[in-house]
Amino acid sequence: MRVLLTNDDGVAAPGLAALAESARKLGEVTIVAPAHELSGVAHAVSITRPIRYKQIKCPGGEVGYAVDGTPADCVKLAVSAILPRPPELVISGINAGNNVGINALYSGTVAAALEAAMLGLPAFAISLDDVGSADFTMAAELAREIALRLRQRPLPTGTILNVNVPGIAPGLIKGIKLTHQSNAAFTGQLEKRSDPKKRDYFWVIGEFQQDPSPFSDLSALRDGYVAITPLQFDLTDYALFEKLKNEGWEV
Amino acid sequence: MRVLLTNDDGVAAPGLAALAESARKLGEVTIVAPAHELSGVAHAVSITRPIRYKQIKCPGGEVGYAVDGTPADCVKLAVSAILPRPPELVISGINAGNNVGINALYSGTVAAALEAAMLGLPAFAISLDDVGSADFTMAAELAREIALRLRQRPLPTGTILNVNVPGIAPGLIKGIKLTHQSNAAFTGQLEKRSDPKKRDYFWVIGEFQQDPSPFSDLSALRDGYVAITPLQFDLTDYALFEKLKNEGWEV
Repeated sequence: MRVLLTNDDGVAAPGLAALAESARKLGEVTIVAPAHELSGVAHAVSITRPIRYKQIKCPGGEVGYAVDGTPADCVKLAVSAILPRPPELVISGINAGNNVGINALYSGTVAAALEAAMLGLPAFAISLDDVGSADFTMAAELAREIALRLRQRPLPTGTILNVNVPGIAPGLIKGIKLTHQSNAAFTGQLEKRSDPKKRDYFWVIGEFQQDPSPFSDLSALRDGYVAITPLQFDLTDYALFEKLKNEGWEV
Repeated sequence: MRVLLTNDDGVAAPGLAALAESARKLGEVTIVAPAHELSGVAHAVSITRPIRYKQIKCPGGEVGYAVDGTPADCVKLAVSAILPRPPELVISGINAGNNVGINALYSGTVAAALEAAMLGLPAFAISLDDVGSADFTMAAELAREIALRLRQRPLPTGTILNVNVPGIAPGLIKGIKLTHQSNAAFTGQLEKRSDPKKRDYFWVIGEFQQDPSPFSDLSALRDGYVAITPLQFDLTDYALFEKLKNEGWEV
């Protein structure tokens, strides 16, 4: 299997190295990832400036590509310019920190998998709910199992899995749950500080509020389960579409 | 009505100025927008660096705020730090260039409206399908009409409208259509060039393929209609969720 790996934590991130080590057992691995960390970059694409890349040697021995661009750029570049043939699977991660709830929309890691889906490629994103000195071993092994499973039973074109692994000892993980994206909002949004010249600046912060749905990715993760959420990239609210039709918006 | 305006073309963009001039008739207008153009920045949030802003005087006389951050940052900042009370409506635009199909996921303009929806605020995005020396007058007037309409009949919390206006003479516009987000892919993805030192660089490009659905935003726009697509920010594919349940993914 020809596997393309990317992420938003950057080409040197330990989560990507762990993923590469595990993915190597699947076949031919190519790494095309941002040269630097781009957490929170969402589905940004570089349309106001050009993209460059450099070939690098990855820790596991593969040739890798460090891209001066976003995770979505990386997927476009890999498919259109770097790889001689399209990959059979795109895996994005392993992200340091969860991508549940609306984090899925902020995440460059999830966006890279969605970009692959836009190109008609099988893909999933995987994140570990641990921003500290995380051990990615179990998540990397899980990624490989999911890859094998998706080869047996492919997802419909245009869809991905968003996999979130609890940041706890593997023995404490209770199982795997299929989930929906949590609708929980953040409490707190910004933290105001003053620089040495007494000028204000702000950090984006925020903790998820309690999520009443037991079937959400956030709840499953908090309960100690791996959360697997199937995602697609059509934002249309079809129920509202019908409602507005009846309200006579069309002229 | 207290109206917050933002965009991804930057605080000095003519589309924003035209929108402000029209929105002023609605009530109290505040502009909080990126200091510079950030087209294609999607739903990026600045989590790896802090945000700053400067107070500026807008052409129409309003106090405005130029933010060293993304469109989504602008909405967070406006609501959490700048405005004494939450806005009653957030309008993002008028974008120079359409935001139909998957452009809705690449667009910082649409993301700003979605960020407002995440905060529970009424919001819509508006874009003009013209990247040249566009005349935003008709789109600005339409924005005001939509604002008045939404005050009469609010959208459900967590939803927005994504409005796309054809870049043709107002007299040639055939009407307004409710649409879904087009599923059309891009043809061509990257253009390779060589710099004066013979090093390669790439521009992200792409034209939409033909969209067979007459009900898509792309088709409506191409047919000369204003396209209004209701959007929400839950990416979950619920049909696939049920399918995977039956395939025994849960353990």
